[in-house]
Amino acid sequence: MSDNQFTHFDAEGKAIMVEVGDKAPTRRVAVARGEVRMNEATLTRILDRGFEKGDVLAVARIAGIMAAKKTPELIPLCHPLLLTSVAIEFLPHPGEGRLEIEATVKVAGQTGVEMEALTAVAATALCVYDMCKAVDKAMVIGEIRLMEKHGGKSGSFIRND
Amino acid sequence: MSDNQFTHFDAEGKAIMVEVGDKAPTRRVAVARGEVRMNEATLTRILDRGFEKGDVLAVARIAGIMAAKKTPELIPLCHPLLLTSVAIEFLPHPGEGRLEIEATVKVAGQTGVEMEALTAVAATALCVYDMCKAVDKAMVIGEIRLMEKHGGKSGSFIRND
Amino acid sequence: MSDNQFTHFDAEGKAIMVEVGDKAPTRRVAVARGEVRMNEATLTRILDRGFEKGDVLAVARIAGIMAAKKTPELIPLCHPLLLTSVAIEFLPHPGEGRLEIEATVKVAGQTGVEMEALTAVAATALCVYDMCKAVDKAMVIGEIRLMEKHGGKSGSFIRND
Amino acid sequence: MSDNQFTHFDAEGKAIMVEVGDKAPTRRVAVARGEVRMNEATLTRILDRGFEKGDVLAVARIAGIMAAKKTPELIPLCHPLLLTSVAIEFLPHPGEGRLEIEATVKVAGQTGVEMEALTAVAATALCVYDMCKAVDKAMVIGEIRLMEKHGGKSGSFIRND
Amino acid sequence: MSDNQFTHFDAEGKAIMVEVGDKAPTRRVAVARGEVRMNEATLTRILDRGFEKGDVLAVARIAGIMAAKKTPELIPLCHPLLLTSVAIEFLPHPGEGRLEIEATVKVAGQTGVEMEALTAVAATALCVYDMCKAVDKAMVIGEIRLMEKHGGKSGSFIRND
Amino acid sequence: MSDNQFTHFDAEGKAIMVEVGDKAPTRRVAVARGEVRMNEATLTRILDRGFEKGDVLAVARIAGIMAAKKTPELIPLCHPLLLTSVAIEFLPHPGEGRLEIEATVKVAGQTGVEMEALTAVAATALCVYDMCKAVDKAMVIGEIRLMEKHGGKSGSFIRND
Repeated sequence: MSDNQFTHFDAEGKAIMVEVGDKAPTRRVAVARGEVRMNEATLTRILDRGFEKGDVLAVARIAGIMAAKKTPELIPLCHPLLLTSVAIEFLPHPGEGRLEIEATVKVAGQTGVEMEALTAVAATALCVYDMCKAVDKAMVIGEIRLMEKHGGKSGSFIRND
Repeated sequence: MSDNQFTHFDAEGKAIMVEVGDKAPTRRVAVARGEVRMNEATLTRILDRGFEKGDVLAVARIAGIMAAKKTPELIPLCHPLLLTSVAIEFLPHPGEGRLEIEATVKVAGQTGVEMEALTAVAATALCVYDMCKAVDKAMVIGEIRLMEKHGGKSGSFIRND
Repeated sequence: MSDNQFTHFDAEGKAIMVEVGDKAPTRRVAVARGEVRMNEATLTRILDRGFEKGDVLAVARIAGIMAAKKTPELIPLCHPLLLTSVAIEFLPHPGEGRLEIEATVKVAGQTGVEMEALTAVAATALCVYDMCKAVDKAMVIGEIRLMEKHGGKSGSFIRND
Repeated sequence: MSDNQFTHFDAEGKAIMVEVGDKAPTRRVAVARGEVRMNEATLTRILDRGFEKGDVLAVARIAGIMAAKKTPELIPLCHPLLLTSVAIEFLPHPGEGRLEIEATVKVAGQTGVEMEALTAVAATALCVYDMCKAVDKAMVIGEIRLMEKHGGKSGSFIRND
Repeated sequence: MSDNQFTHFDAEGKAIMVEVGDKAPTRRVAVARGEVRMNEATLTRILDRGFEKGDVLAVARIAGIMAAKKTPELIPLCHPLLLTSVAIEFLPHPGEGRLEIEATVKVAGQTGVEMEALTAVAATALCVYDMCKAVDKAMVIGEIRLMEKHGGKSGSFIRND
Repeated sequence: MSDNQFTHFDAEGKAIMVEVGDKAPTRRVAVARGEVRMNEATLTRILDRGFEKGDVLAVARIAGIMAAKKTPELIPLCHPLLLTSVAIEFLPHPGEGRLEIEATVKVAGQTGVEMEALTAVAATALCVYDMCKAVDKAMVIGEIRLMEKHGGKSGSFIRND
């Protein structure tokens, strides 16, 4: 697999699910992040679950974990994989009305889990939006990006910013 | 349904799929946008499909349309809906390495389609990422937000920015 | 539809998804219950989430709500329906090591939601089992039954016990 | 994995899909049972398929097998697995109006298949209920439990009763 | 919608799920047929289920009914619909080694059910192939076609051959 | 596995997902073909995408690849597999109004991928039908068959015609 080609097309430009059968199964991990920006009052309410009791983050975490498993159904050219671990962390920044989401996905397989980690972040964020939209329709989901990945022939990727 | 409560929890804070059976079915539409930021060279390659032939945008559009239909499977408290239309538009900004995505979803039903439009944008963006990640792992998916919605008791929402 | 025939087979005994197109859409509700029987210590631990923090019931409730939406995928001859509401209640009986689960499902449609309510109870119970099985493999899921249903031509059913 | 902790939560009580990548893949089997209790006449009708021809048990068996494959979609923190075998047996007790269901699931993998076996039993029972509910709404699904499991580090479990 | 355009693309050739929200919901039906051609001995064995007991046709019928419900997940631009009825008939031609399959699907909705009927036939045929492939790998699935459709603005279609 | 038995039933004729845990994982490939027969004008329009721009084949290819991954959800007794590659080729015969479809599926696993290849062909063909049905309702999907398979204990199969 060259570094300067779109690998999801064959030589004639037709979409394919590329053959990974020749790659050795290795332990792989990917970490992705994203955020939901919202009114400070909305974030305060999410974090103040002792009073309101409705736990937005607990529901969104489940949405993210389940979405990681659904990645090959959502992303047409993704390979099915036997994920060995999915974890979702929340990093709230109350003064900025910003809720960071981090997903860590692991597998022992023939292809990486970047898409699974990114999909988990996206679904977690969408679920936060869904649960808060009655009070704040102007929330923005952003900065969904790969932070690092390890394992496989192409080696490690670590994001600088 | 008040405007200052999280409506996905009952009075004791337990997550519920809220009753919408009393709402009249009305024609509803939601428009959402988002973007993928990437190297200018990556975007040039995507847009230059006459030469490369591999059509990233055609595949990503299908991913987005299919994801809209999967929204109630991904977002735990979303109601199932009979979507009557889903359309995905791409607005490339080649000089900025920025590919904007817009999803428009319509329904005649008892609840809105914001989540379907936002989910369609997210899945379209994730699919673009997937197809280009061999050449550009540092892409960022961002600015996923509701642009406007119409129909239903709560009336229209139009984003200012 | 007679009351003394298996309605999921035609006159020759072949399985069919029976025609409901002639039935008027009406508001319908079904309530189902079930329970998980476990060691008292296991139930105490589930209920004591202030200390342990891991909220078994919050996760299981989401599993139940999502399973209600999946009913036509799981039960071969069930009709797809646009559920308007799904709610899951837990009724713990700590002294008996017994956790009762109640699901209430509503729809406006041409067929009832008994199966959706029963499926929600079963999935909620299975998820409780999954989350507690490391400490208590001998748990038993039982007494899954329809408590009441209303709406539709066949009228109301209310269980006596 | 300790025997006295809920393993589906991390140290802070957040739900996770626990890492199983360090476990060796081994051959594993799980056997689960459950039952549907019904009017004797209902069970007689189910068993008498030579006359009625509609084969409730054949349909329910397929529902159970397909549900076993869907377990990671239904149970949020379950790992995806490549099941190598699923079988469903029926053990009718006509004099008691009781239909026992037994599911046996096998895998070679890093985590057990208890949940797959229990889910298969539950779905089989729900399908029996669905197909018979026009003649007997008071049926009860019960006694869903793990009978035995083998393989993996935690060793064998065999139920006493 | 004109009769001489591909309606699944907009004016610029982009794939869309076309708006059907302006169409009146009407009762609609579609009938599709197809066949599996096989060795005469294979068909004899399928039909002789009194002896072998393994009922290929009962399993394949369930596969077809469930696939009809999955049509919008399989066919990217299909609308979700609330099917009101699905039935599968088998018409064996033992002397020709030919098993005909007919699916009838009904709905009250804003778009037709041709794709649901054709998908049901295809899945039924694929399941027959799967269950018989150990004895006959050279089977051919063919002649999958719409026989008739009724309802909707475009009126009835009845195939001549 | 004998060559003269239906392997999807046990000795008593009950449907099972047969145990494949004793088979060695090997590299396997299956190639299937099928076709859509249509008016010559319809095929011309599909192939002339430079003018119309709507790319029927690009959408249908994605439908086929995604359907291959869904095979165990569609075919009740199929085992889940980690497909390593899926590719769809189109071979148009414009003079005959005939569009051939070829799917190649690869895996390293304990059971073959014939069903995945056949399912991919069927879904690709159904999607072509869906996108063209507004101009040509009389299209026929046919000749879906296994062309060759390699790998596994039963060895290679190569079709003669």
